[in-house]
Amino acid sequence: MRWSLPCRLVTPCRLAPPSLRTILPRRSHSVASSSPALAYKSYGPPDKVIRLDTIPLPPLVASTVQVRVVAAPVNPADINQIQGTYPSKPNFVEPYGAVGGNEGLLQVVAVGPDVKGLKVGDFALPLSKAFAGTWRSQAQCQPDDLMRIDIDGVSPIIAATISVNPCTAYRMLKDFVDLSPGDVVIQNGANSGVGQAVIQIAKFRGLRTVNVIRNRPNLDEVANELKSMGADLVVSEEDVRKPDVAARIQALGAPPRLALNCVGGKSALNLSRMLGDNATLVTYGGMSREPLTFPTSPFIFKNLTCAGFWMTRWYKDNSLDARGTMLRELFQLAREGRLREPKHIVVRWGGDRDKAELERVGAEAVQGGLEGFGVGKRVLVME
Amino acid sequence: MRWSLPCRLVTPCRLAPPSLRTILPRRSHSVASSSPALAYKSYGPPDKVIRLDTIPLPPLVASTVQVRVVAAPVNPADINQIQGTYPSKPNFVEPYGAVGGNEGLLQVVAVGPDVKGLKVGDFALPLSKAFAGTWRSQAQCQPDDLMRIDIDGVSPIIAATISVNPCTAYRMLKDFVDLSPGDVVIQNGANSGVGQAVIQIAKFRGLRTVNVIRNRPNLDEVANELKSMGADLVVSEEDVRKPDVAARIQALGAPPRLALNCVGGKSALNLSRMLGDNATLVTYGGMSREPLTFPTSPFIFKNLTCAGFWMTRWYKDNSLDARGTMLRELFQLAREGRLREPKHIVVRWGGDRDKAELERVGAEAVQGGLEGFGVGKRVLVME
Repeated sequence: MRWSLPCRLVTPCRLAPPSLRTILPRRSHSVASSSPALAYKSYGPPDKVIRLDTIPLPPLVASTVQVRVVAAPVNPADINQIQGTYPSKPNFVEPYGAVGGNEGLLQVVAVGPDVKGLKVGDFALPLSKAFAGTWRSQAQCQPDDLMRIDIDGVSPIIAATISVNPCTAYRMLKDFVDLSPGDVVIQNGANSGVGQAVIQIAKFRGLRTVNVIRNRPNLDEVANELKSMGADLVVSEEDVRKPDVAARIQALGAPPRLALNCVGGKSALNLSRMLGDNATLVTYGGMSREPLTFPTSPFIFKNLTCAGFWMTRWYKDNSLDARGTMLRELFQLAREGRLREPKHIVVRWGGDRDKAELERVGAEAVQGGLEGFGVGKRVLVME
Repeated sequence: MRWSLPCRLVTPCRLAPPSLRTILPRRSHSVASSSPALAYKSYGPPDKVIRLDTIPLPPLVASTVQVRVVAAPVNPADINQIQGTYPSKPNFVEPYGAVGGNEGLLQVVAVGPDVKGLKVGDFALPLSKAFAGTWRSQAQCQPDDLMRIDIDGVSPIIAATISVNPCTAYRMLKDFVDLSPGDVVIQNGANSGVGQAVIQIAKFRGLRTVNVIRNRPNLDEVANELKSMGADLVVSEEDVRKPDVAARIQALGAPPRLALNCVGGKSALNLSRMLGDNATLVTYGGMSREPLTFPTSPFIFKNLTCAGFWMTRWYKDNSLDARGTMLRELFQLAREGRLREPKHIVVRWGGDRDKAELERVGAEAVQGGLEGFGVGKRVLVME
């Protein structure tokens, strides 16, 4: 089944941010007969197993599509997948293995004569595993592997990074606790890609957020960044248990009814201590690698619930219609300037670079993705 | 609001177990003008703070009721309440303080002239905190403090102990996972009062149970007791992670979808490891006093949910109609012999005993309640 997003009314004068015009040049893209790709044949440390391969792209058959990758991020899950520690496994294909990357913005460069509903120039997102690997210049696929999208007025960086982080934030704010304007949400790892999206979506919905981040030399700078996105309160892990912080959280209104945890260990425990009765703590990551540890009593006497969230499972369990509804809402937030580009570093890739250069730049981007959120998510932008 | 259970059809020839006939003598009970009670004026170790007091019972006013306590158990929560560690606090009343005990079977011995719907000889259960303290011979209360029940064909020991343990088991098997016949439930502390009820209610519903108990010299004996109640599998905490146990659990069908935890720590972790995708672990106790500790990954990738259950909260949040429906079903199971008396020790109390003797016997019963489930729940049976 192919699926496309209906067009949305776009303010005519709104343009993509100027710095991104080079990402979407006006000239049409050539149809390549092969594509460089960052691939791996076995699991291991990314800097050991990722290498540059060239994947042949034979002439299209009647029902297939050729796309170029406009931009593709390096997400933590991509790295875990290469390390072999991620439950969702890539498709290894002879002879080049698996291509890294699970997210990105695509643009159609050629369609077979039998393909309906997709034309050259259309933009699309890959549909989960069906599209295997976004860290490459071009790829061939079935129309069913794509969801056509309207990116008018939306930064290509946002479109390329919307399916994992903002969608995770969107679902966690929607599917666990029935939140109303004024309700308080507390999260750790608030500077992460998901954390930034949580702040902005919560702000749009009239929710208040308490945002816990690791202590760092530029704490005030990061706090101000998050506040500029709509964060009500930003506190460091060290400060979160201080009485004045508890008082500032209380001053926001009722105790938080939802906690979002991507750290685990003591940080998650601290979140749970701030929660009110009947609250839910949702875990979507475990950056500290420490287990979740909670005393028994809040489960029994405060009716605490601990749940987990995995975007991949949600995509598997839900319809394309539901996915479309979510994406339409998020793209609209982006058009209205309410959902910004995540903090990111553009890594220019493809173009005229030779194999050695593509491999080096790609490996550096992946390695950079291992280093956490401080400086921003690496996004490969294909030239 | 007063509330009474509609009568149920009872097999006429069915009698209370012979050993219990002395609990329900045919002679009518006198209306006492005072009652001995096991009371406490401050929180502390039960053997330090519990003492025998005599509470005056003045002549009834028009709208009040006088009841005798037929039988009242010593539950762990009663002890925690005396220790001051339980979130639900007793009502301290001058000059005798609070009377221990929150559960029991009552029988009406006198009613004021304006009381409707209750008559001398009726049996009733106390409605949560409204009836303050069951460790006494007689008490006065409002009709609204009582739920009239029909105990024809039901052991008074079951009636006196049904509101806490079997009701907890009933709700946990009903309110968290939509279980169908053949589904598997795993629990620790399976020899506890709740554990025994879980086994029997699950058996009636066609569910299979995996029952984890602490290792002990008479492990086989306890296992056989639990199997006689309907347990499918009984394993010790030590054995639960052995491969053959995992194989025996698998042989029951699908992996467990519900785990019931009253221990915490490593025992709860072991339960969680046996669970299938989308399962829920419900915590209703923390006997080990160790926190709940789980790795992050099952929350995210297996969609594990951890919840808590507290019967007191359920009673507070739900209607008397819902309580009545639950009690009718449980009493019917008891009539049909599907829900047995919990393992218990009768402690005879009241009657002609002097104050010193009542205090000594009562203190021993409470102290016995501290010692765990091995030999059975202490039940004060009033003479």
